Amino acid sequence: MQAVLTAEEMTEFLAEVFPQVKEDFVVESVDGVNTVMRLKVAERHLRPGGTVSGPSMFSLADVSAYVATLARIGKEALTVTTGCSMDFMRKPEAGKDLIAHTTLLKLGRTLSVSNILIYSEGSDAPVARANMTYAIPPK
Amino acid sequence: MQAVLTAEEMTEFLAEVFPQVKEDFVVESVDGVNTVMRLKVAERHLRPGGTVSGPSMFSLADVSAYVATLARIGKEALTVTTGCSMDFMRKPEAGKDLIAHTTLLKLGRTLSVSNILIYSEGSDAPVARANMTYAIPPK
Amino acid sequence: MQAVLTAEEMTEFLAEVFPQVKEDFVVESVDGVNTVMRLKVAERHLRPGGTVSGPSMFSLADVSAYVATLARIGKEALTVTTGCSMDFMRKPEAGKDLIAHTTLLKLGRTLSVSNILIYSEGSDAPVARANMTYAIPPK
Amino acid sequence: MQAVLTAEEMTEFLAEVFPQVKEDFVVESVDGVNTVMRLKVAERHLRPGGTVSGPSMFSLADVSAYVATLARIGKEALTVTTGCSMDFMRKPEAGKDLIAHTTLLKLGRTLSVSNILIYSEGSDAPVARANMTYAIPPK
Repeated sequence: MQAVLTAEEMTEFLAEVFPQVKEDFVVESVDGVNTVMRLKVAERHLRPGGTVSGPSMFSLADVSAYVATLARIGKEALTVTTGCSMDFMRKPEAGKDLIAHTTLLKLGRTLSVSNILIYSEGSDAPVARANMTYAIPPK
Repeated sequence: MQAVLTAEEMTEFLAEVFPQVKEDFVVESVDGVNTVMRLKVAERHLRPGGTVSGPSMFSLADVSAYVATLARIGKEALTVTTGCSMDFMRKPEAGKDLIAHTTLLKLGRTLSVSNILIYSEGSDAPVARANMTYAIPPK
Repeated sequence: MQAVLTAEEMTEFLAEVFPQVKEDFVVESVDGVNTVMRLKVAERHLRPGGTVSGPSMFSLADVSAYVATLARIGKEALTVTTGCSMDFMRKPEAGKDLIAHTTLLKLGRTLSVSNILIYSEGSDAPVARANMTYAIPPK
Repeated sequence: MQAVLTAEEMTEFLAEVFPQVKEDFVVESVDGVNTVMRLKVAERHLRPGGTVSGPSMFSLADVSAYVATLARIGKEALTVTTGCSMDFMRKPEAGKDLIAHTTLLKLGRTLSVSNILIYSEGSDAPVARANMTYAIPPK
């Protein structure tokens, strides 16, 4: 259950496959089971009132589960989201990045399942929870 | 079970509260129960390969449920998403807008629940399904 | 998109593979896309106060999606639930059966996805919504 | 964030409000945030082949989130499930009890949100994950 890619390799790979969001995300750490990612919150992620938008949090959860899966199976760009659910529990703090802690619960032959908790940096009360299922392309 | 806002009023209100996405969405029709919205698919919504990104589909489902709820309760900008789940079932067709058909299943005192089916324009096989729960601010 | 099993054949097959619940469910109708099932509500399905329990509604949604899938692929008993989400929206009416209306949204090679709406018999306001994903065994 | 009820008090309260399932569940431990519950797996929970049924796992997740919530707010029997999602990831081991580890992620004025992981006793690979939302009755 070890990662086959480092955080640096994952960051480079993300920039290559998702060039339009490469300014948004940083892979903070990655091992075979746990992944930590940062959303560098900028104006374009905000709703009026200064809160981070739902779609921005969805993106963070989605890319986190993608990274958690690829950390184990390698650079399979065609791994795609098939399902998710999210609960939005607290208002993110204005002016703080969001940090996502992801646990890879299952890596099967055709599917991976991840749990994600999202926090405003420096807080220990989660702003959102998510679970994501990815379909892994056949070899 | 009648709408208190027209499609035109909803479109104007969206432009006011979500100025950053006003180019993206069109309210095609709205009554007290069913809402149809269009995502005008542009370069910024795409993944490499030409498919619409998951976060763009999430945005469409999210704003559709918001519109479906506000059509009944009026301009309550602070109505916020509390939960959702989605399944991504087919690859959207390249170069086609996405059309979301939303049914408001419940409008309670504190929560609304909506079902959403998303199609590539002109196709009758849904590319994604979603359900969204919104919290309604107390009067 | 036609059913390969009739409602009668499905009812018999359920009694064979799930003998412990054969008194609970009736397949009212089945075609390739839409399925209607009845939960014959009995004492064992109730919570104090006379409302149908959450697990009983989950069972109804689960077996409905199973029937909707098998109606198309035939008697594949090893088709198993991989994911679901549900919203419980209204209290079921005491003394009424529950009726589940299921739409098969996708039947892929390895997964099926269904939407389910559950009603108290005779009412048109749904008591619950669900979506269910089933994994289909490889041929 | 301390529990207001002990594991023994919760077990007694469950037996009182859900007499029909009092043989099924044991509250192993409870504090203000984490709850451990056991499903004493018996014949009635099984599917042919010896695996625990989906509805039995749903019941375990559901009652676990109920206990996690009531541990903080006290004996509010009318606290009801409003939403959930589950992923079924592995086949439970035959002849083993199921153990659910629940984390209360949010306790608001009107809603609680919990994450649940379910294991076959003695295994550290989860058989299922769930999240549950409960509505808390107004004071």
